[in-house]
Amino acid sequence: MATLPKKESRAPTTCLGLDTNYGDGLERERSRKPDHKRPEHYGVGDPTTTFSSDSSHLSSRGRISKWFWDSAEEGYRTYHMDEYDEDKNPNGIINLGTSENKLCFDLLSSRLSQSDMLQVKPSLLQYPDWRGHLFLRKEVARFLSFYCRSPAPLKPENVVVLNGCASLFSALATVLCEVGEAFLIPAPYYGAITQHVYLYGNVRLVYVYLDSEVTGLDTRPFQLTVEKLEVALQGANAEGVKVKGLILINPQNPLGDIYSPGELRQYLEFAKRHELHVVVDEVYMLSVFEESLGYRSVLSLERLPDPQRTHVMWATSKDFGMSGLRFGTLYTENRDVATAVASLCRYHGLSGLVQHQVAQLLQDRDWINQVYLPENHARLKAAHTYVSGELRALGIPFLSRGAGFFIWVDLRKYLPKATFEEERLLWRRFLDNKVLLSFGKAFECKEPGWFRLVFSDKAHRLRLGMQRIRKVLTGTLRVAEDPPSSRTQEPRGQHI
Amino acid sequence: MATLPKKESRAPTTCLGLDTNYGDGLERERSRKPDHKRPEHYGVGDPTTTFSSDSSHLSSRGRISKWFWDSAEEGYRTYHMDEYDEDKNPNGIINLGTSENKLCFDLLSSRLSQSDMLQVKPSLLQYPDWRGHLFLRKEVARFLSFYCRSPAPLKPENVVVLNGCASLFSALATVLCEVGEAFLIPAPYYGAITQHVYLYGNVRLVYVYLDSEVTGLDTRPFQLTVEKLEVALQGANAEGVKVKGLILINPQNPLGDIYSPGELRQYLEFAKRHELHVVVDEVYMLSVFEESLGYRSVLSLERLPDPQRTHVMWATSKDFGMSGLRFGTLYTENRDVATAVASLCRYHGLSGLVQHQVAQLLQDRDWINQVYLPENHARLKAAHTYVSGELRALGIPFLSRGAGFFIWVDLRKYLPKATFEEERLLWRRFLDNKVLLSFGKAFECKEPGWFRLVFSDKAHRLRLGMQRIRKVLTGTLRVAEDPPSSRTQEPRGQHI
Repeated sequence: MATLPKKESRAPTTCLGLDTNYGDGLERERSRKPDHKRPEHYGVGDPTTTFSSDSSHLSSRGRISKWFWDSAEEGYRTYHMDEYDEDKNPNGIINLGTSENKLCFDLLSSRLSQSDMLQVKPSLLQYPDWRGHLFLRKEVARFLSFYCRSPAPLKPENVVVLNGCASLFSALATVLCEVGEAFLIPAPYYGAITQHVYLYGNVRLVYVYLDSEVTGLDTRPFQLTVEKLEVALQGANAEGVKVKGLILINPQNPLGDIYSPGELRQYLEFAKRHELHVVVDEVYMLSVFEESLGYRSVLSLERLPDPQRTHVMWATSKDFGMSGLRFGTLYTENRDVATAVASLCRYHGLSGLVQHQVAQLLQDRDWINQVYLPENHARLKAAHTYVSGELRALGIPFLSRGAGFFIWVDLRKYLPKATFEEERLLWRRFLDNKVLLSFGKAFECKEPGWFRLVFSDKAHRLRLGMQRIRKVLTGTLRVAEDPPSSRTQEPRGQHI
Repeated sequence: MATLPKKESRAPTTCLGLDTNYGDGLERERSRKPDHKRPEHYGVGDPTTTFSSDSSHLSSRGRISKWFWDSAEEGYRTYHMDEYDEDKNPNGIINLGTSENKLCFDLLSSRLSQSDMLQVKPSLLQYPDWRGHLFLRKEVARFLSFYCRSPAPLKPENVVVLNGCASLFSALATVLCEVGEAFLIPAPYYGAITQHVYLYGNVRLVYVYLDSEVTGLDTRPFQLTVEKLEVALQGANAEGVKVKGLILINPQNPLGDIYSPGELRQYLEFAKRHELHVVVDEVYMLSVFEESLGYRSVLSLERLPDPQRTHVMWATSKDFGMSGLRFGTLYTENRDVATAVASLCRYHGLSGLVQHQVAQLLQDRDWINQVYLPENHARLKAAHTYVSGELRALGIPFLSRGAGFFIWVDLRKYLPKATFEEERLLWRRFLDNKVLLSFGKAFECKEPGWFRLVFSDKAHRLRLGMQRIRKVLTGTLRVAEDPPSSRTQEPRGQHI
């Protein structure tokens, strides 16, 4: 779902119409914005600039919602109209763009079909506590205490459950920020967050641009440093954009990278200094398939610098490969935030029957520890080994340290010019050759030519997908033009 | 959930703080509002006037969300802490306040536990089409075509499914209205709609006040007429409030009344004249247990006056007595509206497993027609007969024509003074005597002293609940004071 293509042509800012009072933060913002070119270390997102529409029965924000839907057409929905099927549609599109884990449906189907899963009792059919049924919140607290290795048991009263992390971003943006305010987010990042905080909340993102080139304090490509956070925050302040928080994705999407406990603590201290909320998205926390990485959840830290402003999200979508189950959860010690989010949960509720299923699943530690996780990690690792081997054989640099479902692939040498238009043309060529990838612009990567390749799929689809990628790339030899050194430099030590 | 008590003290309008820019429509609105007393035919709702909070980590709208949660404490949550149970807590609170049908859990449990309900296949575990899976939208279209008796088959592409009608109100308000704009709504109405359109959408309601007294063009108490709609619309316009649509609840909540096809058409023509959207909430359409009423869905009309602006909602919460299942649906011929709502459905999605269950349920016409509906209607009718008989024996006037789960009860003669404070005191006395009702103010009824009494509960709970009501009322004889004629006049022909 992160392959949202953006219209290349920028509509005039008046496209929302003169009579609109949508939020008004954005309008005021625009007039306040200085004319000079943006510095390249950060950027203030404005989802409305690429938008135009003439749906006369809709409000301005209705037109924006519709635009987000329509603009996803080319990628995700082209795929859905021509989905690959080994038997029925062998020439259909292979989807290596959507971040789903398709390796464990056999394990999940078998577990979810067991008789304990279907329990229908009156309390599950009646209005729930909007924070989630207590039996589920207790189970979530126990689950997170164990898998996040929290120093003390986590508490059910700090848990709010809802129908996925998209909803949680929407709710948190709304209860933490005023209209027009912003979150800092290191870019590249999972692009759908733009919509999640904007469509209902009218909250924007300030991108903290990361570089592939390793310089200064960086220890690896696309390294996040406190210095970069400071520069982006000051830049946003100077532009009159009020920043209310910082979003961290750990394990990171699309980099497949993780933050060390030391790094994490630095970012949290930075946030505390500036009284910023920190939203830590840990939806891939159990999808770290290289144990040597030593992944640590923020909830495992001995003492959080600012617990009242630290809010953690997790879901079953990625770690249990069930994006269609629609279960997500917030953990926060801030009761006001939990209550305000719970109040919005009237709009993000999940069925009592599903709440029962999730509780059953999370409490089955034997199955999780002895069946699901070992098998899932082994399958992820095998798929990753295959795809990274293929990339290596093609001489393609990439980043991927052993977490998540994707490899961040450097295809800059295949762009005739280093522009996002060329990036898009290459993406289009992949799609024409029946393989869907996600281009870097969808993640607000500032360097054209990076792609996210999802490897968590069955071997036969991966094989065919990689054949098609190879076909496109071998037919796309870089046109002359001496590449700048940073462009061909392979990220250090990232081939694993 | 409609028993939301409001704080009686009005906080100063500055309670949101000087630095807030929440929406801003409301602030502007307030300064524009003329000083003279409001006419009594309509009112412009402003959910922020009763609000105060000092949750420093929240945005102004976060504080409003939290306030809505906290303010529900006294009723709904007092009940949940002391819930009646025949064996375990016989002195607990009987809930005749929440509009749920508790009469058919046996039928539902038995149907939902059948083996066809638990199907786990990969497509249900993956990201869905956010409009809802096609198999479900097809089933919804077939279901509504049949039960709404549409002149032509309804189309799956006009269907959007999501996790309940609260979400649908939120999404429609956002895609149809700008911040600060409004919907007309005849009052009394299901009070939670205030939050649904406001919390995310920042959209307000303009109340079209209805009277218990039958005068002029009215044919029954609380009759909605086009004249009243016109007056409210003009009043809102004069106050500078832009009205974008009209909300109709049919069968009506809390009146238990239905609109005739002729009335419905008049309201729709009114809306067309003023280019207003009409949102028709038909969540009680299959809970009409008096067949003689001749209920007609808006989708049964031969020709809708303005199909592009007519949007219908239905859900399983009421008609299938499963508010905890979280399934609702929109039907609209306006593709732009359907698409814009679908785009917001990322935040209102329901599990693929539940989508399968709902489809199985809706397609089982044998069970619906031969088991569920006849039995449900018979049980509703019996419960209604019992409660209305008790009220009659107590000499209490009431309205209820045979639709919905509630009786609109006229307790004005039990208020020492005709104020909402007295209404609230009486409500409190009921609660102290362990029976939860909903007071009229929660429905924005303009006459103090009306209560909504939910009768769709098991006989033993109804008996005990009515005993407790009787006890409170026999101890609450109206103090002296000659009642004005309109106050004791019994609504015409409503004792059934």
